[in-house]
Amino acid sequence: MSEVYAARRALLRERFATAGAEAAVVSRPANVRYLCGAAPTAGALLLFGAAAGAQDALVCPGDPAGEQHRERADDALRRVLLPATEDGTDPVLAAARLAASAGAGVLAVEEHHLSVARHRTLAAVPGLRLADLGCAVEQQRLVKDEEELSCLRIAAEIADQALGELLESILVGRTERHLALELERRLIDHGADGPAFPTVVGTGVNAGRPGHTPTDRRVEEGDFLSICLGAGYRGYRCEVGRTFVIGTTPADWQIELYDLVFEAQRAGREALAPGAAYRDVDAAARHVLDSAGYGEGVGARTGHGVGLEIDEDPRLSPSAMGKLDACVPVTVEPGVHLPGRGGVRIDDTLVVRPEADGGPELLTITTKELLAL
Amino acid sequence: MSEVYAARRALLRERFATAGAEAAVVSRPANVRYLCGAAPTAGALLLFGAAAGAQDALVCPGDPAGEQHRERADDALRRVLLPATEDGTDPVLAAARLAASAGAGVLAVEEHHLSVARHRTLAAVPGLRLADLGCAVEQQRLVKDEEELSCLRIAAEIADQALGELLESILVGRTERHLALELERRLIDHGADGPAFPTVVGTGVNAGRPGHTPTDRRVEEGDFLSICLGAGYRGYRCEVGRTFVIGTTPADWQIELYDLVFEAQRAGREALAPGAAYRDVDAAARHVLDSAGYGEGVGARTGHGVGLEIDEDPRLSPSAMGKLDACVPVTVEPGVHLPGRGGVRIDDTLVVRPEADGGPELLTITTKELLAL
Repeated sequence: MSEVYAARRALLRERFATAGAEAAVVSRPANVRYLCGAAPTAGALLLFGAAAGAQDALVCPGDPAGEQHRERADDALRRVLLPATEDGTDPVLAAARLAASAGAGVLAVEEHHLSVARHRTLAAVPGLRLADLGCAVEQQRLVKDEEELSCLRIAAEIADQALGELLESILVGRTERHLALELERRLIDHGADGPAFPTVVGTGVNAGRPGHTPTDRRVEEGDFLSICLGAGYRGYRCEVGRTFVIGTTPADWQIELYDLVFEAQRAGREALAPGAAYRDVDAAARHVLDSAGYGEGVGARTGHGVGLEIDEDPRLSPSAMGKLDACVPVTVEPGVHLPGRGGVRIDDTLVVRPEADGGPELLTITTKELLAL
Repeated sequence: MSEVYAARRALLRERFATAGAEAAVVSRPANVRYLCGAAPTAGALLLFGAAAGAQDALVCPGDPAGEQHRERADDALRRVLLPATEDGTDPVLAAARLAASAGAGVLAVEEHHLSVARHRTLAAVPGLRLADLGCAVEQQRLVKDEEELSCLRIAAEIADQALGELLESILVGRTERHLALELERRLIDHGADGPAFPTVVGTGVNAGRPGHTPTDRRVEEGDFLSICLGAGYRGYRCEVGRTFVIGTTPADWQIELYDLVFEAQRAGREALAPGAAYRDVDAAARHVLDSAGYGEGVGARTGHGVGLEIDEDPRLSPSAMGKLDACVPVTVEPGVHLPGRGGVRIDDTLVVRPEADGGPELLTITTKELLAL
């Protein structure tokens, strides 16, 4: 993997050098991890332009907690552990001082991540002028390589397994919180680093609420039960969401609502293609729900990118700008929630692929039939 | 509770008014929660000075996910849900625009929380001048009221219970990851919102590493086993850490190391008093380990504040400035880790109380005898 990280850093180096910076400090944790394989809490990655001839460094806070992570980081990096006596020193500030002492005059920083207060202390380092690195690393992260996609595939497999096992157990009478916990335990059992995000379990009136925090409500006969979970595997996070009916026969309104959301989700999936505008994918799914009169409750987005973060670029929303590329993994997750009644949400993680390669690759393969459990 | 939040907001209103601001936007999630009882993801709380005569507002992103949280927020607030069409609009920016449209000329913001990029978009709002709110809310949060302390007491009781139950089960042969998961499940069983932080379980060579991420290493006879966990209860987070020996008879080096860390932790606890300097509490614990030649591995801090965040002010470290007050809850958690051998960590949450009230109140009451399990 070491060469992969080195290649990513080389690409970034070109970018900030072109923009006139002699060095850059990366501070956003997922970006640090992308560039060196480790993300120590509050750590900062210092990269020098080719001209500087100085060694890149990973600067960590002065606490033994940094150790475990430091061990995993790329060997090509110098490791700087701040001494305990410098407790409270921002590793980004320490990195900036290192840059200045190595003669770098212009330092690019992540202005979308650094707070105004931290930025101000950096600006006071003598001999240093600050520039904006912008979202250069986030842009690099958009299109995934095969290594990344295979981590996402495994993460999706784990989530599918955990969900599949839960469905074989008795659900009536159990609380949303306990079901969520059991799912998270099963994720770990199957080899996940952990849940990719807090597991969502909503039953009855809570079903279909996006981001619902599980409560003590128990699953009852006749309920809609919606579940959204994800696994993290080697840092990569996927997402799968399904809605079920509890009992033998779904009510008519449940079948109708389910079919509608299924239709919307299929339209979204089918719109995924290299070159498709983000907003057109959103529109494909949204239009189905809009036409049926459920436009209000759809939410701001019908999908988003996944990777080292569970919610990263692109956004699939009416106001999003940009077009999909091949090898970009995204979720497609329209839903409808009827206040006081419940709702439906169907969520898959897919990788954008050209038609010639068979179209979008579905990572989360749990059935989307309406199961009565 | 509504009056409590109103009183907290009134106090903050005085502070920013004194500093010349006509309104303030609070964006740090724990601060938003402290002031209104809810912390919607990426939500922003807009407060007007008394002179402005406009109603305070909680601004949430345009996604139904905000709903659940909005419902829990204080009734005295106006709720502003950004429409789905404004996906991507920063709620802080929306709050700033509201402030400007209500005629507030000077708006205080949390410069230690807002990124440079977000701050820049705010600065471009016509008619608005930005000021720094600084850590005004964090300072208010330092000393806890009885309601807050009782939440912490319950959180501590839950963590003690979860830990106590685990110790009654068979540990040999189980992995760090599974023990951590079981503890987290037990926390929920006993009524926690969830774990206060990722549970730390370290066995053998991993024992005593602060912030250790549980691995697949299995517990073996003769191991040190160190566990650090915490419960969240109504948002308040506590911490308890203990180290055990697996098998019937601890080795001499294990007894010696344990006694030493116990001594250090006791010295730290006994140094807690209103008026005691943060650094003196740290020094009391650190000195014991230093004198025995273990100074290097102690880490930057021997304790820290807890509350709505698991790691908040004050820091108990050699370079910390300030003095303890009554009703400030802190951890005391010195430890020693010997690379390749393992180590010991003992961690309690206590509330600072004057001598006349019986001295520091111990919230985490699990025994600190060296148990052989």
